[in-house]
Amino acid sequence: MDIRDNIERIRADFPILKRTMSGYPVDYLDNCATTLKPQQMIDAVVNYYTYLGANAHRGDYEMSAQVDYHYEEARKRTAQFIHAKSEKEIVFTSGTTESLNILAMAITNQVLQEGDVVISTQSEHASSVLPWLEAGEGKGVEVRYIPLSPEGRVTVENFLSVLDDKVKVVAIAQVSNVLGYEAPVKEIAKICREKGILTVIDGAQSVAHLPVDVQDMDVDFFVFSAHKMCGPTGIGVLYGRFELLEELTPVFFGGESNARFNRCGNLVLKKTPFKYESGTQPIEGALGMKAAMDYIDGIGKKNIHEYELALKEHFLKRAAQELPRVKIYNPTAKSGIITFNVYDDGKLIFPQDVASFLNSRGIAVRSGEHCAKLLGEFIDVPGTVRASAYFYNTFEDIDRLVEALKDCTFTNCLDIFF
Amino acid sequence: MDIRDNIERIRADFPILKRTMSGYPVDYLDNCATTLKPQQMIDAVVNYYTYLGANAHRGDYEMSAQVDYHYEEARKRTAQFIHAKSEKEIVFTSGTTESLNILAMAITNQVLQEGDVVISTQSEHASSVLPWLEAGEGKGVEVRYIPLSPEGRVTVENFLSVLDDKVKVVAIAQVSNVLGYEAPVKEIAKICREKGILTVIDGAQSVAHLPVDVQDMDVDFFVFSAHKMCGPTGIGVLYGRFELLEELTPVFFGGESNARFNRCGNLVLKKTPFKYESGTQPIEGALGMKAAMDYIDGIGKKNIHEYELALKEHFLKRAAQELPRVKIYNPTAKSGIITFNVYDDGKLIFPQDVASFLNSRGIAVRSGEHCAKLLGEFIDVPGTVRASAYFYNTFEDIDRLVEALKDCTFTNCLDIFF
Repeated sequence: MDIRDNIERIRADFPILKRTMSGYPVDYLDNCATTLKPQQMIDAVVNYYTYLGANAHRGDYEMSAQVDYHYEEARKRTAQFIHAKSEKEIVFTSGTTESLNILAMAITNQVLQEGDVVISTQSEHASSVLPWLEAGEGKGVEVRYIPLSPEGRVTVENFLSVLDDKVKVVAIAQVSNVLGYEAPVKEIAKICREKGILTVIDGAQSVAHLPVDVQDMDVDFFVFSAHKMCGPTGIGVLYGRFELLEELTPVFFGGESNARFNRCGNLVLKKTPFKYESGTQPIEGALGMKAAMDYIDGIGKKNIHEYELALKEHFLKRAAQELPRVKIYNPTAKSGIITFNVYDDGKLIFPQDVASFLNSRGIAVRSGEHCAKLLGEFIDVPGTVRASAYFYNTFEDIDRLVEALKDCTFTNCLDIFF
Repeated sequence: MDIRDNIERIRADFPILKRTMSGYPVDYLDNCATTLKPQQMIDAVVNYYTYLGANAHRGDYEMSAQVDYHYEEARKRTAQFIHAKSEKEIVFTSGTTESLNILAMAITNQVLQEGDVVISTQSEHASSVLPWLEAGEGKGVEVRYIPLSPEGRVTVENFLSVLDDKVKVVAIAQVSNVLGYEAPVKEIAKICREKGILTVIDGAQSVAHLPVDVQDMDVDFFVFSAHKMCGPTGIGVLYGRFELLEELTPVFFGGESNARFNRCGNLVLKKTPFKYESGTQPIEGALGMKAAMDYIDGIGKKNIHEYELALKEHFLKRAAQELPRVKIYNPTAKSGIITFNVYDDGKLIFPQDVASFLNSRGIAVRSGEHCAKLLGEFIDVPGTVRASAYFYNTFEDIDRLVEALKDCTFTNCLDIFF
């Protein structure tokens, strides 16, 4: 679908775009934090509440069987969405953070030995670093960071510079949530496969924006959240190669994951992937996520990616001519993420103040460290402003951002508080 | 609110009650597994998707601030719902199972020593036993079971019979999900408080049906899920006394729970309870749960409890006269849970077959072990049928169950498959 030709039809699917913010129609440019929801996704959630209603995998009646059917269809759809070999490789979790914590705990405790190394990057989101640091601490597992290129990228060369025989896991994001650079995951995964190193890829910022093929990338684990791809919060995915999911033991246990157990603790777990889903699943979450996948694929991820790049290009072009006070950190990143700061008379305007000023014009952006606190050691400022576009944004949304940034001065930032 | 006088108005709030099952209006008696959802709850979820839309605790703009406000209001409302001292004692999780796993892991790893004992019961749900068994295994922590009274109850006397100086945790359900008996939590908690034993109470089957006051019961931890109380799936609560939540370290880590960290793993966590919420929270889940609490309190938990007992009484009365082939295991349990088996010519009809037969009459019940697999050692049958009523059920729903059970024979059970 050509997005530019259909933008009004697309926007009509998102009821929230009718709302205003600070008296302006909302200009939502915080899509890295969470995305807006199309009516089709909302309808799927409501359909669970108003028609399906039962719990999954538990009952002996029609409603319950219908829920099972839809829930497992969502699993198949998810496998298809990232081109997994089988739906048995799809575990539903509460989101990226839970997926990453489960993997860090299970792999560290069950696979790694003292002295082993996990590789991360300087630009990593806290959820992708902290679980490894915490799980590794007690066991003497070290976390090592791929240094970034001068531009801020993860490169194969820099990866090789920290690689040695102690490395057993590489846990990195496919797309950085701060700078928007895509890491060379396929190339890194190829090297890891040859050396028997496990790859854990954080797809939170990529899966909604780029075609993702876990088999083509040949990664071991790939995780993401639904709410960053037009779906509900509280639901995410842990993809793992079937043999690995089979081999590992879950971190959580409950009524849904066990086949039987006795008082001595002898436990027989259900089959993969069910052994990883220990409690009542986020059912309407899974159904809503499936609807979101249908919606995104209906537009086409290639189209989405190209459209995002066109929006960014439009910003960069205008910024080069009209925004001399704006410093952009990631002009070459092939994504809809624009990370910048605004200066006035040579002095940095605090990113939070820029964001507040933009809010006064109805524009939603994010400021701060973006959960990637290590990056502060790389970019020498206390934080940045991040505008991140998605397929329902318009060129007018970008124009509004440019016009507002022209007016973003210390004086005008102060004025909004009085 | 008098439920009998208002039952039609109440039922009109539940759109799913308009649906049919096997050609009959649905007679939903599987409320222990999950509950149906009122329009008010659905509207709260939809309002997040169509109006609020942003992520929580992250942005610098109006939409985001509105989300924060509503999300934290949900926390306050939850504290009020169970009469916690402060909203700082409320952690949002994905549900009861996650809450229990977090507590079992954190307490076992951070508080318990080799040789310590955790007390559970024979009637416990898997989610309340397995986490302790699994976490304790590596550490040499033993799980010990309170034997049940001949009726199937947890009693103070039987609790005392397994109590000794090694016991450091008592982890039991307030209401059993199989037999529906209420455990003497307050009395047990009093003994535990005197001896410095931690109490972890599974409120999954109580919080929607009984007035719950965590301060009056004086328990340390109390956990439950929203979907068993008219709320969404994927959201639950971990209540903990503030000092204990402060003392413990979370199990999961992520972008939302840390205040700062550096590459060496030096981590400063956010304040309690935020340090326990590591990823994007189930935001619409929390808002939906709040609406569910408002709805339930609007009807009144005392009224709900009395109405459930009246429904059960009605069943017991008719069963005594008209259902000689039905064996009821828990006639004296003061809840809406009826656990039974059907016999034909003195032989047990397999519970799954009874459930399938009831489905053919539009009645939803649950059969099997009900995730309480230890109980099989107590009730000498391979499983049971469980009908569980809630405040939107009618006396006619119970009558339909009685009439169907009259017809429940081997021959009629077989017939439904052909």
